[in-house]
Amino acid sequence: MQTVVHLLSGDEGEQDTSLAIAKNLVADESGRIDDVAVVIQASGIEVARAGGRADDDIQELLDDGIAFKACSNTLETVDFGESDLIDGIETVPEGAVEVTQLQTDGYAYVRP
Amino acid sequence: MQTVVHLLSGDEGEQDTSLAIAKNLVADESGRIDDVAVVIQASGIEVARAGGRADDDIQELLDDGIAFKACSNTLETVDFGESDLIDGIETVPEGAVEVTQLQTDGYAYVRP
Amino acid sequence: MQTVVHLLSGDEGEQDTSLAIAKNLVADESGRIDDVAVVIQASGIEVARAGGRADDDIQELLDDGIAFKACSNTLETVDFGESDLIDGIETVPEGAVEVTQLQTDGYAYVRP
Repeated sequence: MQTVVHLLSGDEGEQDTSLAIAKNLVADESGRIDDVAVVIQASGIEVARAGGRADDDIQELLDDGIAFKACSNTLETVDFGESDLIDGIETVPEGAVEVTQLQTDGYAYVRP
Repeated sequence: MQTVVHLLSGDEGEQDTSLAIAKNLVADESGRIDDVAVVIQASGIEVARAGGRADDDIQELLDDGIAFKACSNTLETVDFGESDLIDGIETVPEGAVEVTQLQTDGYAYVRP
Repeated sequence: MQTVVHLLSGDEGEQDTSLAIAKNLVADESGRIDDVAVVIQASGIEVARAGGRADDDIQELLDDGIAFKACSNTLETVDFGESDLIDGIETVPEGAVEVTQLQTDGYAYVRP
C-alpha cells in the first residue's frame, strides 16, 4: 500500500504530526506500507526550508526512503526558492495536482 | 482526473487556501484535471453566504467551471438559508455523503 | 459506500465536527452509506478517554454501529492506556496504517 501525507498547515503541531505519521508509516511492522510521499504546500512550506526547524527530521525521513515534494506555485509566494529547500526535496508544479495524481495512482490520503 | 476540495474549516486561512487550491487545480497547465468540486459544510459554511467575504472569489471560480455544493444539514444550524447562498452554489443533503460519493466515483480528496 | 473519518486534531471544534459527521453519515436517508469507521490518533486521542467530554456521544455512535479505532502508537505517548478507553473502542497498532488500509479497501476519507 502507498500513502500520501498532505502537509499544508501552518500549525506547527499539525506539521509535526505529519512528519511523525510519515515516520510511523514507513516503520510499520506489518509490512503493508510500500511507499510514502509527503506533499508540502501553502502554509506548510516553511518546513521545507533548509536550516529550518524541521531540517534534521526531514533529512532522516528522506534517508528512510520517504519522498518529499514541495509545490512550486507556493514557492512563488514566499521569500525563499527552490535553491533554499532541504537537500533531497523535489519540486512539483502544483501540490494539489500531485496529490490528485498520487490518489489516482492508488495512494491513500492522510491530512494531519 | 477529478478532485473534491472539502471546505469545512472555520479558519479563514484554510478557507482561502481551499479556494486558491481549487483555482490552481482548474488552471493546471498539464491538462490532467478534468473536474473540480468544492463541498462546503460545518464551520466552512460562512464562505457560501451571498455578500460574504468570499463572494467575488467564488463567483469567479464558478465561472471557471468549478462546482460548489453546500450542505443542507449545516444550513439548518446557521442563521441563513439556501436563498442566501451565492448564486450558482448548489445544495446537497449532507456534505460528507457527497464527499463519499465523489470519492467512490473516482475523485481524489483534498482537505486544506 | 464506506467512509473513514480521521479524528487526529486537538481542536475541540474539529473533534465535535468529526463526531457529528460520523452521525450524519450513518443517519443518511439515501441509504448509500453502509459502514463508517472513526480512526482516532495524535492530538485527537483525548476524545477516546472513558469519562471524557465525548464519552456519551461516542457510546451513542457505537450503538449506531460506527467502529471506533484508537492508535496504540499514540496511546504510548499519553498518560492513559487501552484500559482507560471508552468501552467498545478498539485499538489498532498505527492509525495512519489503518486509514491507509481502509482507503485501499474502498473507504472514502473525510478529515474534519
